[in-house]
Amino acid sequence: MQLSEEKVFKDPVHRYVHVRDLLIWDLIGTKEFQRLRRVRQLGTSYLTFHGAEHSRFNHSLGVYEIIRRIIDRFEGYENWNRNERLLCLAAALLHDVGHGPFSHSFEKVFSLDHEEWTRKIILGNTQVHEVLQRVSADFPEKVADVINKTYENKLVVSLISSQIDADRMDYLQRDAYYTGVSYGHFDMERILRVMRPTEEQAVIKKTGMHAVEDYIMSRYQMYWQVYFHPVTRSAEVILTKIFKRVKELYKTGYSFLYEPIHFYAFFEEDVSLQDYLRLDESIVLFYFQMWQEEKDEILRDLCQRFMNRKLFKYAEFNPINLAQWEELKNLFRVAGLNTDYYLVMDSSSDLPYDFYRPGEEGERVPIYLSMPNGELRELSRESEIVESISGKTRTDHKLYFPEDKINELPDDSQVKRRIMEILQG
Amino acid sequence: MQLSEEKVFKDPVHRYVHVRDLLIWDLIGTKEFQRLRRVRQLGTSYLTFHGAEHSRFNHSLGVYEIIRRIIDRFEGYENWNRNERLLCLAAALLHDVGHGPFSHSFEKVFSLDHEEWTRKIILGNTQVHEVLQRVSADFPEKVADVINKTYENKLVVSLISSQIDADRMDYLQRDAYYTGVSYGHFDMERILRVMRPTEEQAVIKKTGMHAVEDYIMSRYQMYWQVYFHPVTRSAEVILTKIFKRVKELYKTGYSFLYEPIHFYAFFEEDVSLQDYLRLDESIVLFYFQMWQEEKDEILRDLCQRFMNRKLFKYAEFNPINLAQWEELKNLFRVAGLNTDYYLVMDSSSDLPYDFYRPGEEGERVPIYLSMPNGELRELSRESEIVESISGKTRTDHKLYFPEDKINELPDDSQVKRRIMEILQG
Amino acid sequence: MQLSEEKVFKDPVHRYVHVRDLLIWDLIGTKEFQRLRRVRQLGTSYLTFHGAEHSRFNHSLGVYEIIRRIIDRFEGYENWNRNERLLCLAAALLHDVGHGPFSHSFEKVFSLDHEEWTRKIILGNTQVHEVLQRVSADFPEKVADVINKTYENKLVVSLISSQIDADRMDYLQRDAYYTGVSYGHFDMERILRVMRPTEEQAVIKKTGMHAVEDYIMSRYQMYWQVYFHPVTRSAEVILTKIFKRVKELYKTGYSFLYEPIHFYAFFEEDVSLQDYLRLDESIVLFYFQMWQEEKDEILRDLCQRFMNRKLFKYAEFNPINLAQWEELKNLFRVAGLNTDYYLVMDSSSDLPYDFYRPGEEGERVPIYLSMPNGELRELSRESEIVESISGKTRTDHKLYFPEDKINELPDDSQVKRRIMEILQG
Amino acid sequence: MQLSEEKVFKDPVHRYVHVRDLLIWDLIGTKEFQRLRRVRQLGTSYLTFHGAEHSRFNHSLGVYEIIRRIIDRFEGYENWNRNERLLCLAAALLHDVGHGPFSHSFEKVFSLDHEEWTRKIILGNTQVHEVLQRVSADFPEKVADVINKTYENKLVVSLISSQIDADRMDYLQRDAYYTGVSYGHFDMERILRVMRPTEEQAVIKKTGMHAVEDYIMSRYQMYWQVYFHPVTRSAEVILTKIFKRVKELYKTGYSFLYEPIHFYAFFEEDVSLQDYLRLDESIVLFYFQMWQEEKDEILRDLCQRFMNRKLFKYAEFNPINLAQWEELKNLFRVAGLNTDYYLVMDSSSDLPYDFYRPGEEGERVPIYLSMPNGELRELSRESEIVESISGKTRTDHKLYFPEDKINELPDDSQVKRRIMEILQG
Repeated sequence: MQLSEEKVFKDPVHRYVHVRDLLIWDLIGTKEFQRLRRVRQLGTSYLTFHGAEHSRFNHSLGVYEIIRRIIDRFEGYENWNRNERLLCLAAALLHDVGHGPFSHSFEKVFSLDHEEWTRKIILGNTQVHEVLQRVSADFPEKVADVINKTYENKLVVSLISSQIDADRMDYLQRDAYYTGVSYGHFDMERILRVMRPTEEQAVIKKTGMHAVEDYIMSRYQMYWQVYFHPVTRSAEVILTKIFKRVKELYKTGYSFLYEPIHFYAFFEEDVSLQDYLRLDESIVLFYFQMWQEEKDEILRDLCQRFMNRKLFKYAEFNPINLAQWEELKNLFRVAGLNTDYYLVMDSSSDLPYDFYRPGEEGERVPIYLSMPNGELRELSRESEIVESISGKTRTDHKLYFPEDKINELPDDSQVKRRIMEILQG
Repeated sequence: MQLSEEKVFKDPVHRYVHVRDLLIWDLIGTKEFQRLRRVRQLGTSYLTFHGAEHSRFNHSLGVYEIIRRIIDRFEGYENWNRNERLLCLAAALLHDVGHGPFSHSFEKVFSLDHEEWTRKIILGNTQVHEVLQRVSADFPEKVADVINKTYENKLVVSLISSQIDADRMDYLQRDAYYTGVSYGHFDMERILRVMRPTEEQAVIKKTGMHAVEDYIMSRYQMYWQVYFHPVTRSAEVILTKIFKRVKELYKTGYSFLYEPIHFYAFFEEDVSLQDYLRLDESIVLFYFQMWQEEKDEILRDLCQRFMNRKLFKYAEFNPINLAQWEELKNLFRVAGLNTDYYLVMDSSSDLPYDFYRPGEEGERVPIYLSMPNGELRELSRESEIVESISGKTRTDHKLYFPEDKINELPDDSQVKRRIMEILQG
Repeated sequence: MQLSEEKVFKDPVHRYVHVRDLLIWDLIGTKEFQRLRRVRQLGTSYLTFHGAEHSRFNHSLGVYEIIRRIIDRFEGYENWNRNERLLCLAAALLHDVGHGPFSHSFEKVFSLDHEEWTRKIILGNTQVHEVLQRVSADFPEKVADVINKTYENKLVVSLISSQIDADRMDYLQRDAYYTGVSYGHFDMERILRVMRPTEEQAVIKKTGMHAVEDYIMSRYQMYWQVYFHPVTRSAEVILTKIFKRVKELYKTGYSFLYEPIHFYAFFEEDVSLQDYLRLDESIVLFYFQMWQEEKDEILRDLCQRFMNRKLFKYAEFNPINLAQWEELKNLFRVAGLNTDYYLVMDSSSDLPYDFYRPGEEGERVPIYLSMPNGELRELSRESEIVESISGKTRTDHKLYFPEDKINELPDDSQVKRRIMEILQG
Repeated sequence: MQLSEEKVFKDPVHRYVHVRDLLIWDLIGTKEFQRLRRVRQLGTSYLTFHGAEHSRFNHSLGVYEIIRRIIDRFEGYENWNRNERLLCLAAALLHDVGHGPFSHSFEKVFSLDHEEWTRKIILGNTQVHEVLQRVSADFPEKVADVINKTYENKLVVSLISSQIDADRMDYLQRDAYYTGVSYGHFDMERILRVMRPTEEQAVIKKTGMHAVEDYIMSRYQMYWQVYFHPVTRSAEVILTKIFKRVKELYKTGYSFLYEPIHFYAFFEEDVSLQDYLRLDESIVLFYFQMWQEEKDEILRDLCQRFMNRKLFKYAEFNPINLAQWEELKNLFRVAGLNTDYYLVMDSSSDLPYDFYRPGEEGERVPIYLSMPNGELRELSRESEIVESISGKTRTDHKLYFPEDKINELPDDSQVKRRIMEILQG
């Protein structure tokens, strides 16, 4: 059903987001979708790039808008089934609806998976589900399948999840816009112009290869300059340790000054849909503020660090050097620091682009170019630049630790001297 | 004291924010300043413009950067006293440090004034104070005086608070950037180039008049297109009513399912600096979420509306029409609606630019042009466009109400029919 | 007839210009249209703003693209006649095809009118005509009528020529882009969204009024900051005087070292279509370069000034002061300067917006807002800002003269002293 | 000598170009520098990208401005000799002053070298020379040496000519801006921030490596998407053939309807400085227009093609395939086409970045990173992406030919069929 009049949202990245379908309008109005306003898109990145305060709500509208534009262009192509239109739009809008606050750290500590929760929100007793099933009884299931990449129409899946999908195209541009970095730009309008539907996936006309190269390079730069920024990872490390500490305290029967009632279900690993949906960043930050005054020294210290941005310092470290790692842990212990919390190895790695390796699981489909003669060729076979970075995982290892606590050791302490020696490489 | 190496923040609006002084670096690191990350610059505007999720931290850095650039250009001018440099920078950075969450509504209900709290934070027992007094014993007082516009050097005051100060220049550009609207742009670089220090204030060389006209027009457009947007005001109305309701419930001894411990001091109007600094948007939103399940129907309803963006609708209304206003209130009462909460008149008004009227209080100093012959002339005497809007207050009145509740009345209800008649003008 | 595949031009202002009709593609390929590449959009402005080197070809594509987008949105509205589509597109593309090199000055000296030549090119023996008449025998005439504002469908005319037409919307943005000034921006996408076809003209929904105000202000600023820039006018003055001098020399039988064969028809005021079309800026500049070595001192001097940017200086002057004007002329003559060439009064005036005054000729139709109740209201009745500048012609008078020649006079010369006295006001 | 007041040029790319030195102001005013306004920066690219109509004047100001900013930052560094400031600025401004119209094609046919002419303009009897020698008698020679890369201070040379010099940084951004393509962007402000002077050259702090990678990628994309665009090369091929034809006709005593007096010195290869400086694009285009009516069929045809943009079509071709090349030439001859003019092989190749290979001539110095420990390392040893494209020349071969003339052959012609077969690969 169409809206009587098209609605628009002013969007800094795509200028306007256009909504013509009542379904989409209603989905945006559900409380589960509105909740995404209270979950930041880039987690702790705002502590490095102060501009990066935008929410997942913001990004989700963007992904929807890109898909809308792609589909508008697909109309009339033989491989495009017009009946899939609403499904694509709904899946685009909802693909991140299961994200919780600071999900990277949170999921790690509490063994959660936002993709699973996305599915539950779409299929469970929610406003989202109620709106979706107005289309048809099996519509929610289809939306969940698209997001889960198990939907039978592979073309539809590829628009939402592939190595050049609407999700990535939106977040690269949006995160670049909000952080203010000069990476992240590519000619999306051109990419949309040269995208063509095939039975298996959306492919790119050969003439648009350079725009795709530019996109791959943008992605590469954004990963190393923004997403894996060492300061962001420091905040992430502290966050993870807070969750870990509070869970540990709970398990050992610690009595909190301020009771973490929102977390109990998570500690017990028995989380209902309602428990999950009550979480957002304001809930988490509320507790962090309260815990700045807890009696447990570690919890109190970590929360103060996070709230007031007194982050851990970092040093390069090669994990192969096991002996040194053991020595360091010992030195920290001698200095009175709990190495479960105050000496953290963190590794980031990125696979900027990957061609297809039969039999491997979990990989997104590669990008295919459609040649003038109709043949399809995988991108890295045509592009030297992409070939050069294709399939090469790059990893960066860093040690995080509270430099201030090391500095507090007496200047003539041998422990301090040795720690510094190791950390300054 | 200078930092050993200049630090920079990547900023989407000014490209980079540059910090060379240890004082500034340390102020940014205080917990009172970091708290501004948890207070949005535009309050409820994000419910209208999804991009407007940026914080006061973000804006404060921007104001500091503009002042820094102005001062760099002032070096060498006779009227510029180099000893005021650090004072200007600190005052620019801290001018909004007293803002609380959703301060517009919050201050109205609890009779607070963020400017007063700014002063308290600067002069009280805070990290900010501790850092400031390292410069000299009277430095905190001087910073507070600049922000309070009582500092003796009027030029310094005018940089922070005048009709063309760093505050306004930053927020117009920044809010335009984050909302994505096309207003709010003007040639700040040119304005900075033609700004000259005099004893009384910063003035603008005549040759730069057009850039200033453009700035005034940007301001005018931003007020009506963004700051006074009727949807934003709807959210603001609901917010105010939530605070009002919860205060009222408290006063009448209502027993909350979820105790608003953070608000007690505010209810009692006996707020310590510590009480004040504990508040931020995550605290407020935490309670709003809890109160969605309170037994008081009005509080519950209003909180659900705010959290899930089920806002009030609006209609034009002329407040002169007192009889109709009384009739409407009656009709709402008959329909079972509490008109203290569900029928709200809201007025916005803006004075886009004002020349000087001797004897009037509270006005910011007007903009002076420095003519080729050295004479100073007030802007509206030279610019026809500015003259045309100068001193003219524009006001807009709207009624806000829950359309859904009116719609729920039976279709043949005379009350419903009459309400609709009045509201549709 | 549609092209087998849409063609695009990369455009810095509109991102892409889209061509789907063979007619448009063929018109762009005609030699008369390609000639517009050799005529700069802003005449002598590049001597003030070095970026303003863009051609009328560039602008013409832009106007076409805006009309294309407007029409795409008009599809489906009752008042829009789909059969006018190609006509609109062709008229948009060709509306400036009759412009010659430096047409402002050139037309003044040689009593020409580019609108008349546009008509001749469309109706005469040209490739443009040949392409147009493939649509139908009367199609060229219709295109000419639209551009001439005499076409019966007033809505169609208003898209190309009104106070908010595609022509103005393109040039404001384009000239701002190429000069680099920060004026000239407005939210065209929003204006296009709120534009509605009526029988008489395109009108603007009331909700879009602010975007239109912003456009009017942009226009105002562009006129005074760019189009009437005093340095540009200085170059324009010299240009006019070169054409005047060469015509005068021809009339008096002067024998040119380098024969201006391309100009003979213009001197004789008997210009064929072919004569006209041979002119472009490279032809004019070719002669200017040659004439830098002519024996006539005035022609030589003026050409050297233009080519090497040794422009006239300017001074404010009130034309009411007739006595002083006569005195100045006398002083210049005493100083040995020909006042027909070396003392020039130049006036610029602009009417930023005008409402409708019945009975007046030559005015573009005003902008109408379409109110929620369906009523149409003229813009200045709704907008205070527009009202304030509406119908007010602003004029600026300046004197132009070769300062270097005055400076060459002996320092103790009374003539020099007096000239300086007058010119420095 | 300083100007009494700083002058600025509004620049779309760098916002403002700032001039404080009288020397620079005077150089800009020389007629040799003003002549650059009549030479387009990108030659024939405007026939592909209609926005690319900007001149070398435009670019030269930009290079000057970048150098000015670099030097401002270098002040205070030990390795920076403040006495080189004016020399750097002058060399930056003048580095392209020897460029003639369409220099790529023109120099090829007439065996010229714009670098040599730059030297002659700086050292010869010109206004530029006159202005430069006011600084000191040997100053012109020093400027020429810097541009010629023979100046003793290698750091100064590296700012103007290296793999990351001001020239390249300006043209990438400027050409991207005017064409409107989305490539060409990189964070120049960051690169300038991390640039450090050493004795031998400017180097980049390791922390800025990613900004440099982004610059290298921008350059790569601009080469293949803009500079080597096949349509631009088609126009270039025709241009070259026009010059070749006219020279050949002259040599064989052909009598021109319209005498190419400006070219005689070039035909005779005896070109004076004055001959050279008289050439600009308006001169060349003047003749091209006249020659559209020459009796020589080839010259006439080629000039009509260029002026009216009826370019050659292109086909991929592998030059290794010598037999096919001979067959094609034969077929064209049989079809009545002169293969010296109507069948052209054109190759473009680019070396995106190169490390240092001792003993090789003509290469620009590579980019060095300054590591935290003070060591210098060549970029491609640190950056995987740069390593992957380093030293790898990429070449593209195309055949250009007049498709229209082939199409005119009878449909049943075997020659036509075979030509088509070969060209369509």
